[in-house]
Amino acid sequence: MNEKYTIGLDYGTDSVRSLIVNVETGEEVASVVYNYPRWKAGEYCNPPVNQFRQHPKDYLEGLEYTIKEALKQAPEGVAENVVGISVDTTGSTPVAVDEKGIPLSLTAGFEENPNAMFVLWKDHTAVKEAEEINQLARKWDIDFTKYEGGIYSSEWFWAKALHIIREDAGVFRAAYSWVEHCDWIPAVLTGNTNPKTLKRSRCAAGHKAMWHEAFDGLPSEEFLTALDPMLAGLRERLYKETFTCDVAAGTLSEEWAQKLGLPQNVAVGVGAFDAHLGAVGAEIEPYYLSKVMGTSTCDMLIAPSDEVGDKLVNGICGQVDGSIVPGMVGLEAGQSAFGDIYAWFKQVLEWPLTNILAKSDLIDETTRQKLIEETSDKIITELSEAAAKIPLEESGIVALDWMNGRRTPDANQALKGAITGLNLGSDAPRIFRALVEATAFGSKAINDRFMAEGVRIDGVIALGGVAKKSPFVMQIVADVLDMPIKIARSEQACALGSAMAASVAAGIYANTSEAQKKMGGGIETEYHPIPENVEKYKVLYEKYKKLGKFIEFNY
Amino acid sequence: MNEKYTIGLDYGTDSVRSLIVNVETGEEVASVVYNYPRWKAGEYCNPPVNQFRQHPKDYLEGLEYTIKEALKQAPEGVAENVVGISVDTTGSTPVAVDEKGIPLSLTAGFEENPNAMFVLWKDHTAVKEAEEINQLARKWDIDFTKYEGGIYSSEWFWAKALHIIREDAGVFRAAYSWVEHCDWIPAVLTGNTNPKTLKRSRCAAGHKAMWHEAFDGLPSEEFLTALDPMLAGLRERLYKETFTCDVAAGTLSEEWAQKLGLPQNVAVGVGAFDAHLGAVGAEIEPYYLSKVMGTSTCDMLIAPSDEVGDKLVNGICGQVDGSIVPGMVGLEAGQSAFGDIYAWFKQVLEWPLTNILAKSDLIDETTRQKLIEETSDKIITELSEAAAKIPLEESGIVALDWMNGRRTPDANQALKGAITGLNLGSDAPRIFRALVEATAFGSKAINDRFMAEGVRIDGVIALGGVAKKSPFVMQIVADVLDMPIKIARSEQACALGSAMAASVAAGIYANTSEAQKKMGGGIETEYHPIPENVEKYKVLYEKYKKLGKFIEFNY
Repeated sequence: MNEKYTIGLDYGTDSVRSLIVNVETGEEVASVVYNYPRWKAGEYCNPPVNQFRQHPKDYLEGLEYTIKEALKQAPEGVAENVVGISVDTTGSTPVAVDEKGIPLSLTAGFEENPNAMFVLWKDHTAVKEAEEINQLARKWDIDFTKYEGGIYSSEWFWAKALHIIREDAGVFRAAYSWVEHCDWIPAVLTGNTNPKTLKRSRCAAGHKAMWHEAFDGLPSEEFLTALDPMLAGLRERLYKETFTCDVAAGTLSEEWAQKLGLPQNVAVGVGAFDAHLGAVGAEIEPYYLSKVMGTSTCDMLIAPSDEVGDKLVNGICGQVDGSIVPGMVGLEAGQSAFGDIYAWFKQVLEWPLTNILAKSDLIDETTRQKLIEETSDKIITELSEAAAKIPLEESGIVALDWMNGRRTPDANQALKGAITGLNLGSDAPRIFRALVEATAFGSKAINDRFMAEGVRIDGVIALGGVAKKSPFVMQIVADVLDMPIKIARSEQACALGSAMAASVAAGIYANTSEAQKKMGGGIETEYHPIPENVEKYKVLYEKYKKLGKFIEFNY
Repeated sequence: MNEKYTIGLDYGTDSVRSLIVNVETGEEVASVVYNYPRWKAGEYCNPPVNQFRQHPKDYLEGLEYTIKEALKQAPEGVAENVVGISVDTTGSTPVAVDEKGIPLSLTAGFEENPNAMFVLWKDHTAVKEAEEINQLARKWDIDFTKYEGGIYSSEWFWAKALHIIREDAGVFRAAYSWVEHCDWIPAVLTGNTNPKTLKRSRCAAGHKAMWHEAFDGLPSEEFLTALDPMLAGLRERLYKETFTCDVAAGTLSEEWAQKLGLPQNVAVGVGAFDAHLGAVGAEIEPYYLSKVMGTSTCDMLIAPSDEVGDKLVNGICGQVDGSIVPGMVGLEAGQSAFGDIYAWFKQVLEWPLTNILAKSDLIDETTRQKLIEETSDKIITELSEAAAKIPLEESGIVALDWMNGRRTPDANQALKGAITGLNLGSDAPRIFRALVEATAFGSKAINDRFMAEGVRIDGVIALGGVAKKSPFVMQIVADVLDMPIKIARSEQACALGSAMAASVAAGIYANTSEAQKKMGGGIETEYHPIPENVEKYKVLYEKYKKLGKFIEFNY
């Protein structure tokens, strides 16, 4: 057996997936998913105040489990022929670490402290800090937010770090530095977690931490201490240099090579965000919008660096040279909640099951749990089926998809969602349909912004759970965008993108474009807009925009 | 046994109740409820388009059942000593009748036709017709809407009758006249259903059909035919004269005396609307707002006729001399949906139970049905308990209570409800709490209007299902209104008011005020505003008004 393999590791919001790919044929030989157990139990989170934290043990246990299990599933001989591992994660998902780069929650006294854990991308506890960053940035001579769309978000690195150290004196005293999830996993695998030397990802730094070559790295010490003297010295303990995902962070440490049953010379690529490597896995091309559609959306567009030049695109989440594909500017946008809105509605509907039926004496506990689980699992599917039968516009319900704030256009995490046009006949499927339409309108607002800023969109490629699993949602998105949408074939485009990146980091291919050609899975299906619906949605989209303006400016 | 008794019959939205009361002591000796079976099964209704119809058989079966059962429950000797029966019903709930006054749905060929049935108060299929009436009224030399608050509603008589005859040519041809539910039941009981001679209630005619002495009865033939030539001649086949509820429509017919087991000389009072007789039962006094709080609210205020004089109160549902208490102008206002909004939310939450769990193979059908019923029955109570624990303002959700349109102030049934301020932590109890607050804000808007129009409110008396059963809701209403709210003791204030009216119609008492003194149940409890909450709700009420303005004018 002479064939080579790489492993793509994809850390999503709820689970981590590993995927082993043949670098020559693109064949996906094994794949394993691990749901974070602490996260699933709702630990360390407080949804009403948008606090979402993840324990590093969820990540480490998932790392070991998914790779070992995937190697077990893979044909004999694969393990010895693995040449690279790359990692993508959600982000910005930073954690406070000690001098050795160990997340504080893995050190004594901080084991159960949510402030010592990873602050998940969708945590919005730092709304106030983001606002302060924006206010200071408006006054400062250099606009450090300008490559991040001009508005700093509470979902991002500095707002989160500042919020946590203000909130928690113990974490403030113990935190030597901060590390993004996508940087920490490769650091662990290579055995070098030293915060000052571990290789930091260009994509996390550039899109979320205001790192830019033009600024000589991160925002200046003066800016950061003006923001809060508590930040003094942190810049020095972070990083100056950043790396694209075609670079190796190192090779597997002895400890991890043994633990995983892999050769020690396996290259470990520099990490990146899931949406970025997802775009690679979905075979992104210049001026194609690659939409990772899951709990939220990450919408990535690449354009040749020389064509973008000095141009700034306002109101998106960032533009970073080489953040997705070297030689291309990666433009990032996205919706703070997409599938999460459906999941929220599902949870609202589950209330009688989990709070009343769960206590019934009519059946025994085992049957009760089974029944609740069975019912719960079918909610989204059955709602989609029922909603698909409702004629467009019949219900008159118009919703606003800002239940987790608004990321793009013009980030504002303090905004909230709404449902209007309700009457006594507005049943669950009708409300669900309006929520789906609202998420599609949110996508349309992003497309509109790119085009208004002079960035053309030649096509849309969708990937992620919603894109693969919900034809109902995808047809509505196609109708609302008035654009065909291609669905990437790979079940796990992010993990595939990571495996592609690993093949470049391991020196098998010269760049991601070559890796895409060999390892890419192509297009599975395509949704075409239905002209009749396109016209009807134009009317509803105007209502959506009017509602959004009211909620944003007058309320 | 020399004691005399009267029977109060109260036709609500979901059921009819009979109550037998000792006219001397006010003792309630028996009471029986009958749920309309066809209505409960959802027959003849189409909630998504707000079509709500009721079959006359539901009413007739309930009439017989509740009186016979109540007489069975009552001590021996009561039946022979019953001297009067009065009836209150929902309204405007009219039905098309033939020349003999028989509802068309009780005649051959119309048995299953919803257009030949009673058009329930909350049916909003006639939104367009109401709009046409308003437009014509604005142009006409006499404003026939002026004693009905200046805006005619789709919930009222003429809009409904016109809508039905336009929709249904068969009903148009067969309909000789139209009769309100509250007029038809006494007509049936006395054996005189002749549309031209049966005694029509002042309250239904004055509040819902634009009847007024100043107009010499109903709006002119010219006005009605200008509205639609299809209405030609109908005015002549309706009525000129109307009667207050202290008048007897007649005595029991031989047929009904036998059927019910009552003497034939029992007086049958002229009918009235539930809220009107509810106000009587709750011992309404001048300048007290009597709120019947159930599926919707009916807010009645009486003021001495000489003090009101020619003054018009804008934007309420009507002001009719003697509609509640002779010698007083009855001013009516109300919310199109109150408890119905909680029921709507309950129904949304039930969807997984009735659509998914109901099909599960894990348990047998009987257990399934029991489990669904048990869970369903507890939803409102458990939601209230959970919602009561949420600190005011914590959720940030603000809702608008127009899920069934807006009755007062300024009737507009085309308006719809909304829920804003939603985030991913907005769970079912938080949404429920916001819905309760929204219904309280709707009550506050009515109080504000009365006061802005110069009608003072000295106090609030509440009755009806929500008032009696939900301390959680009532405390919020008291906090929002910033007024103490007294709860009438009688479990069935409407039925008690009917029994009081029957005692006057039977000649036992000279007027309702005397009957109230002897038969009244007094006050059961009183809710006092909590000063801290009052201040917080002032802030949220401003948001509610802002949201309402947006939904009404810009959307």
